[in-house]
Amino acid sequence: MTEGIEEFPEKRGSILIEDVLTRQGHRDIFINSSGIIEAAGEGIGRAFRDDADLRIAGTKFMAIPGLVNTHTHAGMSLMRGYADDLPLQTWLSEKIWPLEALLTGDDVYWGTRLACLEMIRSGTIAFSDMYFFMEDAARAVAESGLKAVLSYGFIDLFDPDRREREMKATEHLVASIRAMGNPKIQPALGPHAVYTVSEESLRWCAGLSAREQIPVHIHLGETGKEISDAVQQRGRRPVQILDDCGILTPRTVAAHCCWLDRGECALLGERGVHVSHNPVSNMKLAVGRAMPYPWLKENGVNVTLGTDGCASNNNLDLFEEMKTAALLQKFSWNSQTLLPASEALSMATAGGARALGLGNGTIAPGEPADIILVDRNAVCNTPLHNPDSNLVYSCSGSAVRTVICHGDILMKDRVIPWQEEVIRGASAAAADLVKRGGGG
Amino acid sequence: MTEGIEEFPEKRGSILIEDVLTRQGHRDIFINSSGIIEAAGEGIGRAFRDDADLRIAGTKFMAIPGLVNTHTHAGMSLMRGYADDLPLQTWLSEKIWPLEALLTGDDVYWGTRLACLEMIRSGTIAFSDMYFFMEDAARAVAESGLKAVLSYGFIDLFDPDRREREMKATEHLVASIRAMGNPKIQPALGPHAVYTVSEESLRWCAGLSAREQIPVHIHLGETGKEISDAVQQRGRRPVQILDDCGILTPRTVAAHCCWLDRGECALLGERGVHVSHNPVSNMKLAVGRAMPYPWLKENGVNVTLGTDGCASNNNLDLFEEMKTAALLQKFSWNSQTLLPASEALSMATAGGARALGLGNGTIAPGEPADIILVDRNAVCNTPLHNPDSNLVYSCSGSAVRTVICHGDILMKDRVIPWQEEVIRGASAAAADLVKRGGGG
Repeated sequence: MTEGIEEFPEKRGSILIEDVLTRQGHRDIFINSSGIIEAAGEGIGRAFRDDADLRIAGTKFMAIPGLVNTHTHAGMSLMRGYADDLPLQTWLSEKIWPLEALLTGDDVYWGTRLACLEMIRSGTIAFSDMYFFMEDAARAVAESGLKAVLSYGFIDLFDPDRREREMKATEHLVASIRAMGNPKIQPALGPHAVYTVSEESLRWCAGLSAREQIPVHIHLGETGKEISDAVQQRGRRPVQILDDCGILTPRTVAAHCCWLDRGECALLGERGVHVSHNPVSNMKLAVGRAMPYPWLKENGVNVTLGTDGCASNNNLDLFEEMKTAALLQKFSWNSQTLLPASEALSMATAGGARALGLGNGTIAPGEPADIILVDRNAVCNTPLHNPDSNLVYSCSGSAVRTVICHGDILMKDRVIPWQEEVIRGASAAAADLVKRGGGG
Repeated sequence: MTEGIEEFPEKRGSILIEDVLTRQGHRDIFINSSGIIEAAGEGIGRAFRDDADLRIAGTKFMAIPGLVNTHTHAGMSLMRGYADDLPLQTWLSEKIWPLEALLTGDDVYWGTRLACLEMIRSGTIAFSDMYFFMEDAARAVAESGLKAVLSYGFIDLFDPDRREREMKATEHLVASIRAMGNPKIQPALGPHAVYTVSEESLRWCAGLSAREQIPVHIHLGETGKEISDAVQQRGRRPVQILDDCGILTPRTVAAHCCWLDRGECALLGERGVHVSHNPVSNMKLAVGRAMPYPWLKENGVNVTLGTDGCASNNNLDLFEEMKTAALLQKFSWNSQTLLPASEALSMATAGGARALGLGNGTIAPGEPADIILVDRNAVCNTPLHNPDSNLVYSCSGSAVRTVICHGDILMKDRVIPWQEEVIRGASAAAADLVKRGGGG
């Protein structure tokens, strides 16, 4: 368990979930008032019945660990559907970047609130985000009750003046988030990628990360162009550049990793780097290659799942991402057996939790109570021959009924009290943003 | 419009949907008591207000044509999650075929009811099915209110005795369905594939189809092995075999078509064959190649969408299929612009309707009232910059609120009166089937 997460400032009640189907069979689960799973087992509920502030009848549900989204840009949910089906450069330079240049902190606040709403509704309990106006994002996360690791997208474009500004912005975000004192929200460093960040800056990030044990969130090997440009301009592939700068450590989550070669997968394994697989975004943006899961697996790399931002997905449903990961790997490697359902589920739960330092992502005593209850009687779970198969191949996030994040109930029977407020606020912010951009 | 579909035996009321967002802008839609769209346009509702037996306020919804699933095996929904992540031959010969050998008409009835329930909940209003015990399937379809084209899976394995039986079974199904007199349910011929059906039988099917104008539903070019076996054993590729037997006509829907070459795509265009793209199944079963959409498109082939059966998907949500089609084509052909959202939506609506002879799959006067209402205020539609993008890339079938099939309301605000009965019945049938198979 991560230090600090154990002790929550606010008071919460204890919860007993009775007779719920888990991956280990039927269980009672007792969550103490610190948000920690105190006991889990068959028939253990009796001992806690009198202590529990809330009892949830579990017979209609399956309980699984909450899902963890290890790569997103939550604020971009305001751009959902704004620009699709365009050539990559047109999409970026004529649509996304011009709109991003107009973003305000208020936009990012509403975009992040919308993203948090969507993540809760689809069973995600934690995410790692890289974007701008991250103090506003942090405020939105705090209001949602989710856990998040938040990084400012550090982009110096090899310009020393810009580097100074980005370093200050990064330090400022780290300080701001620490000052919030919310144990669910942690700062990270977000050097964007080797093609947008100078080696001086990468080394600075690596040093700060090592000194203060701050996680690093970075894009790596998303397109073939990234690799060939690096080789041509700098004589080294991106993985080598990052390793030379000290970025590859167990504190780092590298997103995409589609174009790694086998030796680079081995190096990531040696360095203990976590990888975030983003199959939907990679397919939609036609990056040309699937993340080499078999090579990462043979090297013991912790592979996790991310949705990427809403402009390149266009949702944040990790159920869909689990399925797409299993399908894309099978299809790309001509193997019906690669990345079976149980592994896809582990990537989205245990893998993600370990990558973000949120415990082991399992339902076991001593773990944070990050638990989602999925409808057993939904059509997608009928029949119920194999829960893992149904969760990965049949269900979408809409099968999630209740979401518990560190003992806090964020959604109960699909009700989130602040939903309508966020739908209205985010719609208005998105319309205004597009209007300022000359559209709409 | 298909002959016969216009005049429904049972009495139904007229419906006025007021002020609903369509792909053509805000509209009122008036559906007459024969289930036909009588008028659709801005502000036309006033004239029909007094006539309408039911008025639906449309401001919270988007109205789109109902989705059409052109390739499935509905009865297999009892096997959802029963066997996954296995090598293809193990999966078929040790899991699926042994269980199918135990199937009863009652099993297929419950499996098809479950499939119909799932299709309605995800916005599908018609489907083309190939399986066994199809009289029982037809009974289930009739109870659901969906439209279907039903074929008996004709498999003679090149054995003359078996051929006789299959011919009789096929004729029997055609007669039974005609005897039902349900204009929503049509018979089709279902020669399974070139590797399971003799040329004598293919010719017999082609003759019967031509004489009586009966549709044909067939698998084609799913795996590379199908192609190489045909070439090796019979000196011709599957498309040539089918063409030699007269199977390739505008009455035929060919499912999968992953391994067609460019010339074969041209031939399908010339013959007017409809193609059913099944990207989720193709990826899950690692068939090694994506259906060549650009080649089919350049030859004017009507490409539609299918989910395949629940054992190889494992759901029947065409929203997911639209997205996966758009992603798989982009990824396979290294193009961010291939198969944009509007085309994916047309494949699932207009394309499917035309393939099954159910009108044009549009919301226009004279068309059958096959309309679904999608929640405009769902998170997946927030913000609403581009409805087509949201429908294809962001929503799952759970965003569908109301389903109207030929003027019959099959689901209203996500309520289907017979849902619980089917969940219970199908669960029991599935458990019993697996028990008889020695499992569970």
